[in-house]
Amino acid sequence: MKPLSKITEKIPEAMSLQFNIAAYDLRRQGKDVIDLSSGETLFKLPLFSFEKLDYKRGFHYSSSFGTLELRKKISQYYFDQYRVKADANKEVLISAGSKIVIYLALKAILNPGEEIIIMEPAWVSYPEQVRLAGGKPVIIPYGENLKNLAKHITAKTKAIIVNNPQNPSGKVYSLKELTYIYNLAKKRGIYIIADEVYGDFVTTESFVSLAEIDKNKEVVLTISSLSKTFGISGLRIGYIIAHEKYIKIILKLNQHLITCPATLLEQYVTEHFSEFIRLTRPQIKDILSRREEVAKYLEKIGLKYLVGSATLYVMVSLGNSKLKADDFARKLLREYHVATVPGTGYGESTARYLRISVGAESLPRIKQAVDRIKKLIALT
Amino acid sequence: MKPLSKITEKIPEAMSLQFNIAAYDLRRQGKDVIDLSSGETLFKLPLFSFEKLDYKRGFHYSSSFGTLELRKKISQYYFDQYRVKADANKEVLISAGSKIVIYLALKAILNPGEEIIIMEPAWVSYPEQVRLAGGKPVIIPYGENLKNLAKHITAKTKAIIVNNPQNPSGKVYSLKELTYIYNLAKKRGIYIIADEVYGDFVTTESFVSLAEIDKNKEVVLTISSLSKTFGISGLRIGYIIAHEKYIKIILKLNQHLITCPATLLEQYVTEHFSEFIRLTRPQIKDILSRREEVAKYLEKIGLKYLVGSATLYVMVSLGNSKLKADDFARKLLREYHVATVPGTGYGESTARYLRISVGAESLPRIKQAVDRIKKLIALT
Repeated sequence: MKPLSKITEKIPEAMSLQFNIAAYDLRRQGKDVIDLSSGETLFKLPLFSFEKLDYKRGFHYSSSFGTLELRKKISQYYFDQYRVKADANKEVLISAGSKIVIYLALKAILNPGEEIIIMEPAWVSYPEQVRLAGGKPVIIPYGENLKNLAKHITAKTKAIIVNNPQNPSGKVYSLKELTYIYNLAKKRGIYIIADEVYGDFVTTESFVSLAEIDKNKEVVLTISSLSKTFGISGLRIGYIIAHEKYIKIILKLNQHLITCPATLLEQYVTEHFSEFIRLTRPQIKDILSRREEVAKYLEKIGLKYLVGSATLYVMVSLGNSKLKADDFARKLLREYHVATVPGTGYGESTARYLRISVGAESLPRIKQAVDRIKKLIALT
Repeated sequence: MKPLSKITEKIPEAMSLQFNIAAYDLRRQGKDVIDLSSGETLFKLPLFSFEKLDYKRGFHYSSSFGTLELRKKISQYYFDQYRVKADANKEVLISAGSKIVIYLALKAILNPGEEIIIMEPAWVSYPEQVRLAGGKPVIIPYGENLKNLAKHITAKTKAIIVNNPQNPSGKVYSLKELTYIYNLAKKRGIYIIADEVYGDFVTTESFVSLAEIDKNKEVVLTISSLSKTFGISGLRIGYIIAHEKYIKIILKLNQHLITCPATLLEQYVTEHFSEFIRLTRPQIKDILSRREEVAKYLEKIGLKYLVGSATLYVMVSLGNSKLKADDFARKLLREYHVATVPGTGYGESTARYLRISVGAESLPRIKQAVDRIKKLIALT
């Protein structure tokens, strides 16, 4: 047989999922694994009734925009939360999770060989999605001053991905930083893909949506996720807010690649939208205060971490350990039963870090896990 | 702003969805539209209980293979129905509908500029998906003798898509035809993407899965859909059966582009798998006998159609009408309130046909619609 696709064969498995799977396997063997590898929150949520839904419609395709009812809820939500106005009829599109929506946005923008700027630490799938979409990821290492961003822009640059708040560092971009990036992008005619999936996982009022800055929706394509925010990541509901002229293109892509998210679950989330907000807000607060406690504890025991206050994650430094992060994380899981994700997955410049998630374990257990990390650093 | 992606901008909206939407709009205005445009079946199905499911797990990601429980059901199903053996642990992968699974298969195979052979009439998204995946669709017009297939194979050919049974003609490939295609593909080292989504919509025992012919799973990647077969297309559950070495690549693609289908719905379908089969089998029979009745009626009133006996569709000839199929279908919808899909969407060689679906309307209403088609042909 002829060889498979070169690009595709070279793509690594998503590092985070590799460690999720390994943790799951150990648990099935009866081991008490402390799971800090998860990209999910384990909110306490009831199963709302499906009986009330118009399930006969729910069994069938919805529009490739998503249902109008859910688009209206999303539009209202972005306005209430972030003061962003979006017309539910033509500026909002829903698909099967924010992951595919980011890919659709990249496909809408990229010609073969064009460049997308990605800032490290970067979510594991950005570079791979750019490559799969036929583009070239241009990586800005952690610590680079934002003032140097322009140096990375070439004639081939098509967009900058801004992940705000940033997974995995927890960094929240200031209004000043966002305005700087926005003005630069606008001036150079390049797009911003704003991944705001963790927009609700912030402690202070400091989070600003890039969509609020880009009033005319010329520059920014804003992506977020209901399934992430509401702690139902398995239900796969992500969306994009953008100018009608961009949504039109993304609609076609969604028609040919996805059709729609699960209609029944669009109905489910629409029906219980306000209950989801009411139930998850206090639990998000809990997660963020747990994150703060973990950060304090790391300081107390002398482990460094990347600056940040938001999301479910902390990027912990491996300090003086001589192990590569991959090997460290593997050893940590195998011998100490703590699942994390090595920073290698988020870029070369954070290859000496571990991503730990506070979304799925209690504070005492996370502290216990952090103690084991410290111990393994001392031993390696 | 810099221009958007050239390939993407040029892509037409999915023709079938355009007419679905137009029909839906007319209905909202209170018009009694006879909808023969739908790619869905309107089975009578109850809402099974969600309470019994392990919904706390259902709210979260499943493996990017899909849940093992559902993979086992699918593996058993393909064996029972089509005598195909597939290891649920490594030869089956589930994602968010068969549409994205076909794209993942194309991405796994294609390098930029390589060719995929598509036989007309071809499902609307094949050529667009090939283009989006960076490849070049090579179209074989309707009526071309299979013996000439080899002429279309070049050094750049990477795969042939075989849609069996074929949407929209209803053609079922014979064992002889499939064996011929298979031997040719194997000899030339090119893959077969077998889209068997309508595998259960056949009247006789004549349907053969290409996966049964390709015992070693070297050549064929077999794609199908539970949501289509079970009449719950809105739940978006498609899958691929292939050799482990191909599944490994598709797993990575699924990790970076989708993660998983909706876990809760994987559980739902797993739990009620046998009930779905029990409830839908007689309804599939009804659809197929309706299809036969429609074909007979077409003959009786002197309208030609493409040879075929399976699926939900009949491709009806526009005979002596001077209108292009697009214009005809638009006029038919606007003035006669009958929604169809113009054959243009399925290729140039079937541009003088209309696709009519028997999945969503009763026989008397379909006959009424066909009468209107005949009337409009006479008038145009």
